[in-house]
Amino acid sequence: MSGNSFGKMLVLTTFGESHGKAVGGILDGFPSNILIDLDFLQTELNRRRTGQLLFSSARKEDDRIEILSGIFEGKSTGAPIAFLAHNIDHKPEDYAQLRDTYRPSHADFTYEQKYKIRDYRGGGRSSARETLARVAGGAFAKQFLSIKGISVTAYVKQIGQYSLPNNFILHELSGISKSEIGCPHPETELKIIDHLKEIKSKGDTVGGIISCIIKGVPVGLGEPVFDKIQADLAKAMLSINAAHGFEYGSGFAGAAMKGSENNDLFVQKDGKIVTATNSSGGIQGGISNGNDIEFNVAFKPVPTLMMDQESVNTKGEKVVLKGKGRHDVCVVPRAMVIVEAMAALVIADHVLRWKQWEG
Amino acid sequence: MSGNSFGKMLVLTTFGESHGKAVGGILDGFPSNILIDLDFLQTELNRRRTGQLLFSSARKEDDRIEILSGIFEGKSTGAPIAFLAHNIDHKPEDYAQLRDTYRPSHADFTYEQKYKIRDYRGGGRSSARETLARVAGGAFAKQFLSIKGISVTAYVKQIGQYSLPNNFILHELSGISKSEIGCPHPETELKIIDHLKEIKSKGDTVGGIISCIIKGVPVGLGEPVFDKIQADLAKAMLSINAAHGFEYGSGFAGAAMKGSENNDLFVQKDGKIVTATNSSGGIQGGISNGNDIEFNVAFKPVPTLMMDQESVNTKGEKVVLKGKGRHDVCVVPRAMVIVEAMAALVIADHVLRWKQWEG
Amino acid sequence: MSGNSFGKMLVLTTFGESHGKAVGGILDGFPSNILIDLDFLQTELNRRRTGQLLFSSARKEDDRIEILSGIFEGKSTGAPIAFLAHNIDHKPEDYAQLRDTYRPSHADFTYEQKYKIRDYRGGGRSSARETLARVAGGAFAKQFLSIKGISVTAYVKQIGQYSLPNNFILHELSGISKSEIGCPHPETELKIIDHLKEIKSKGDTVGGIISCIIKGVPVGLGEPVFDKIQADLAKAMLSINAAHGFEYGSGFAGAAMKGSENNDLFVQKDGKIVTATNSSGGIQGGISNGNDIEFNVAFKPVPTLMMDQESVNTKGEKVVLKGKGRHDVCVVPRAMVIVEAMAALVIADHVLRWKQWEG
Amino acid sequence: MSGNSFGKMLVLTTFGESHGKAVGGILDGFPSNILIDLDFLQTELNRRRTGQLLFSSARKEDDRIEILSGIFEGKSTGAPIAFLAHNIDHKPEDYAQLRDTYRPSHADFTYEQKYKIRDYRGGGRSSARETLARVAGGAFAKQFLSIKGISVTAYVKQIGQYSLPNNFILHELSGISKSEIGCPHPETELKIIDHLKEIKSKGDTVGGIISCIIKGVPVGLGEPVFDKIQADLAKAMLSINAAHGFEYGSGFAGAAMKGSENNDLFVQKDGKIVTATNSSGGIQGGISNGNDIEFNVAFKPVPTLMMDQESVNTKGEKVVLKGKGRHDVCVVPRAMVIVEAMAALVIADHVLRWKQWEG
Repeated sequence: MSGNSFGKMLVLTTFGESHGKAVGGILDGFPSNILIDLDFLQTELNRRRTGQLLFSSARKEDDRIEILSGIFEGKSTGAPIAFLAHNIDHKPEDYAQLRDTYRPSHADFTYEQKYKIRDYRGGGRSSARETLARVAGGAFAKQFLSIKGISVTAYVKQIGQYSLPNNFILHELSGISKSEIGCPHPETELKIIDHLKEIKSKGDTVGGIISCIIKGVPVGLGEPVFDKIQADLAKAMLSINAAHGFEYGSGFAGAAMKGSENNDLFVQKDGKIVTATNSSGGIQGGISNGNDIEFNVAFKPVPTLMMDQESVNTKGEKVVLKGKGRHDVCVVPRAMVIVEAMAALVIADHVLRWKQWEG
Repeated sequence: MSGNSFGKMLVLTTFGESHGKAVGGILDGFPSNILIDLDFLQTELNRRRTGQLLFSSARKEDDRIEILSGIFEGKSTGAPIAFLAHNIDHKPEDYAQLRDTYRPSHADFTYEQKYKIRDYRGGGRSSARETLARVAGGAFAKQFLSIKGISVTAYVKQIGQYSLPNNFILHELSGISKSEIGCPHPETELKIIDHLKEIKSKGDTVGGIISCIIKGVPVGLGEPVFDKIQADLAKAMLSINAAHGFEYGSGFAGAAMKGSENNDLFVQKDGKIVTATNSSGGIQGGISNGNDIEFNVAFKPVPTLMMDQESVNTKGEKVVLKGKGRHDVCVVPRAMVIVEAMAALVIADHVLRWKQWEG
Repeated sequence: MSGNSFGKMLVLTTFGESHGKAVGGILDGFPSNILIDLDFLQTELNRRRTGQLLFSSARKEDDRIEILSGIFEGKSTGAPIAFLAHNIDHKPEDYAQLRDTYRPSHADFTYEQKYKIRDYRGGGRSSARETLARVAGGAFAKQFLSIKGISVTAYVKQIGQYSLPNNFILHELSGISKSEIGCPHPETELKIIDHLKEIKSKGDTVGGIISCIIKGVPVGLGEPVFDKIQADLAKAMLSINAAHGFEYGSGFAGAAMKGSENNDLFVQKDGKIVTATNSSGGIQGGISNGNDIEFNVAFKPVPTLMMDQESVNTKGEKVVLKGKGRHDVCVVPRAMVIVEAMAALVIADHVLRWKQWEG
Repeated sequence: MSGNSFGKMLVLTTFGESHGKAVGGILDGFPSNILIDLDFLQTELNRRRTGQLLFSSARKEDDRIEILSGIFEGKSTGAPIAFLAHNIDHKPEDYAQLRDTYRPSHADFTYEQKYKIRDYRGGGRSSARETLARVAGGAFAKQFLSIKGISVTAYVKQIGQYSLPNNFILHELSGISKSEIGCPHPETELKIIDHLKEIKSKGDTVGGIISCIIKGVPVGLGEPVFDKIQADLAKAMLSINAAHGFEYGSGFAGAAMKGSENNDLFVQKDGKIVTATNSSGGIQGGISNGNDIEFNVAFKPVPTLMMDQESVNTKGEKVVLKGKGRHDVCVVPRAMVIVEAMAALVIADHVLRWKQWEG
């Protein structure tokens, strides 16, 4: 029972290593008879592609997605949807030094200890290239959610020490796509871009925080007590490479708050029962309450640096790792579409699970 | 597929409502032939019991656990272990006002919308009383882990705005149990106790943060790519009532760090490959690396206040909720054993899953 | 991941040993807001109870079921339904000789080898007493199916060499309940009763075949390719103690048939597309086609005999097992309600899974 | 939660339609560091390939398998193994008449009713071409089992009314591969071949029974109470297209037997506790007892005939289906490798599950 599948009703299973033949997946349980927009799928994949931004790795992959099954005459059939993208930009020689070395804060050491064998080419299975399949799966999920009136949108909240102002309110989602790096506050965006340039010039990397907002969620998603919707979102987010934290609603800041400040009072508005505030991040008792679901995900700095680092080889001897290859200064801009994809998979899964309880 | 089961190899399924006949669970997949210390089980349950601390709810329950199966002549048999505690301190009349009312930041509204029926007595299934079964399940898991040399320990990191000093290092676990509230830094403990008294006197509540440290973990636990050990811990923690955030290793603070600061360099020590620092919180690529696993969980303030609050009834009409009943000022002191229990269940599950990959 | 849970949307987890404190289970995923008839539940349990028939074991158990959770004011709430029956007729001394002995064709040997420990009292977990929890779970499932217009009915097809005539057609289900042993053909019934008396007089036992018919099934249940409805029924039936075979539709007899004989031709009838025959047993491509689902389950003779048998003890030394204790001459009459229960659980599970694909 | 995955520790997920781009699958949980013989894989696939035998369909497919992931330098890495075979012999025009028609005893009608859309080309997902992925998955499982000393072998027991003699004992497995149709009794083989020729000349088809024997199974596989090894085998077998029955050990014949005839007495032999007979088919209480596991699977006749058949179109109007296309006279010769593959997947899954209980 290894962990390459995600979801209960809508199940994504991914495969593929960074420098193997292909990466891809099977999405099983996708509702039938839904019109699929393959251009949208490709657009989503392009959002995570390397070599796009100044601050991203220069690896060139077309990431051209191929659908193998489950779609007939433009519509989903209810059969499993298999898809893949071939790996074309192999440069295994870049990774020759990795054969006998453990990169700091990478998975080289733990994979080798666990499996007694390691595909050392570019991290093999532990590479972020695996997330291509998540983005593809998420793009299908988004198309299903779109029919239900649900949207999932991520944006940059913080990179390095530069963060959206505390009193920042996201009034329009359109502000996000206008920004090169997905930051909806132009002043902060400028500071971040300057910061990224500086970090890059030093061969270093930096972490950040992504916010995500899910709109149009009906009341009722989430399965107490263990499959609370925040629990499944937390798992989804922490399964993303480099993610180190998750919070929703008032989150870690809520720890310092009083109940009288944090509680969301119920009020009637336009004939509907809603809450006056949203400290609960759209979820109460593990079940969506009709408000926007809002959460943050913290990412550590990319561990591969363009500077020398000390490490050990597989014999435990000291070595110096040279900073070369192709890598991101900051994972956050490319990770937004991954956060969205995983969130969309969680929400779509719960929409399907919810059907059990409907009338 | 409702969400009342947790784990893949070691599966805990819980049942029971706050004021039903009993709460309990079935633990399935527990290894056979393990000596079970029922006193330890009871001691763990006492740690979460109400009415213990000045700052906890006054509900009196013996929480006397009864084992129904799976143990024979003092040892586990490999059969499912069923257990329960009868509910004895029923005061359903305390909850009469809840029949037609939605408490702020509680699950009343969402449960009723989802299931079209609600056991309104004390929150029914959404009550924290359900966590009794988690603590029992966790106590079994701890006994199994103990044989493997693994320990799980939670402590108070923050309550309200009072937090352990930034440079605090937990040198000895014994400091935790000496504190009435589980805070290993006496100065901070005193501030917190004063703060809790003040909050209580106002009928208000307050949030906090629990830290957890898992010692003795072997290299190799965790199943990439979705069942990374941090992903399963995150899910476990966010499934606890009132938990609003999870972070491990450098966590949210890591967002502001550079790669060159955050990376854990490999070194050889006593003939073993280890890391010089532990920004990774004991996990790399989703797999334990042999270091302590360290994480934090943020809890919101308890939503039930001993003061009047505005809300609406099931018709959407304004009502005022009176502050009465029996409730905690802060969930954190009682939640420590719940955090430990859920962490122990995750680790034990992964110890059993790991067997698949061993030699 | 031991195997004490059954189902995907509607999950029954059972616990309990033959001579432990109690047997019971948790039924999770049961739809909310359904009126529960506890008398029906008890009636179903009485159908499997020992000591009822001339030919059944004389163990006296009230099998009085107690519901611990999930029902509020007479209706299901969507929370897990926990239930149990205490074991009252303990006679562990009857089983003292089993401590160091392996009974022929029982699970004593395999349990001890697998778990390295065995609750030897009456077979412990391997006892048919565990099926009490299945019957209770099935009784809930039947109540849900009843609302959907679906009924599940088992009857005796064969005991020993006495079988319903080949050309027998079950015109009215009521014929079954009129028979003491559940055989709807009076002539066959008489022969069987005589045969059972004779077998009993010799201290021997005998096998049989149960037929089951499921009426009112809508078109569309079953999830290709692995969770075909016949696959899930087969698993359910072969999980019952002593079951040794499963067939549906034309079954084993179909092996000798030609396609031109066996095919079910589609015809239009009353404006609906139906099949002229039902060699497919109501299932095509793993999905129900609207016809009655029909299948047979073969049971081996009860292995516990009232005569001496040779065996070995745990050291491998020859011993003679005395025929004593309380046991059935034939499992079939009591197994009918178990077959129905397991079938009802499968069908209810698929009704809930089917919701994923509905409009 | 659709049903395209099989297994719990070792999980095979399949994809692909008869005339889509490709069929294939992902095998997840396969142990790492195992040398993989790709030639064996191809040989197994050739055993199920069409166009091999006189009596099989004339569809020509290379069934050339391509491995996309999970194998590195000839060994499994513990990562998911993705594989596929492209569909090359498309003749969709053969299937034009199926667009608006329901073939008798096929899945056309039920798929269309369930999913509201149907890939009508050659049965789409319901085609036996899907079993290619099962055979590939099974070939991996066999390589793992081989290391454990376990072999899985199927043979023809019956085709039409021609069956192995009742007293037939399979002394040597080699007899099977010497037979063109996998029948280890030359006299029966000749009768069957004559029968198949006659059936073919009439454009008709015929059913049959496959026996399977699993050798080298250790004591201890199988997870009571629901995941008994016979229960998982039954599900596996009934999930194969056209399978209509499963029995193990004394099976349906056991229904007519007495306990004193059917019981397997324990004896000591060469210092080991074994049973004198094997009516239990190698399984007691759902757990393997060290004997050969033996079971039979009944297959209905292929429903596609080379003769005219009446049916209805999607409007319910009468139509006549012409017998054309490429189809088998009898599924049994090609189904042997599928039976073996599914059995190997079940046994390998339980070998991995068993590790939970080992020392």
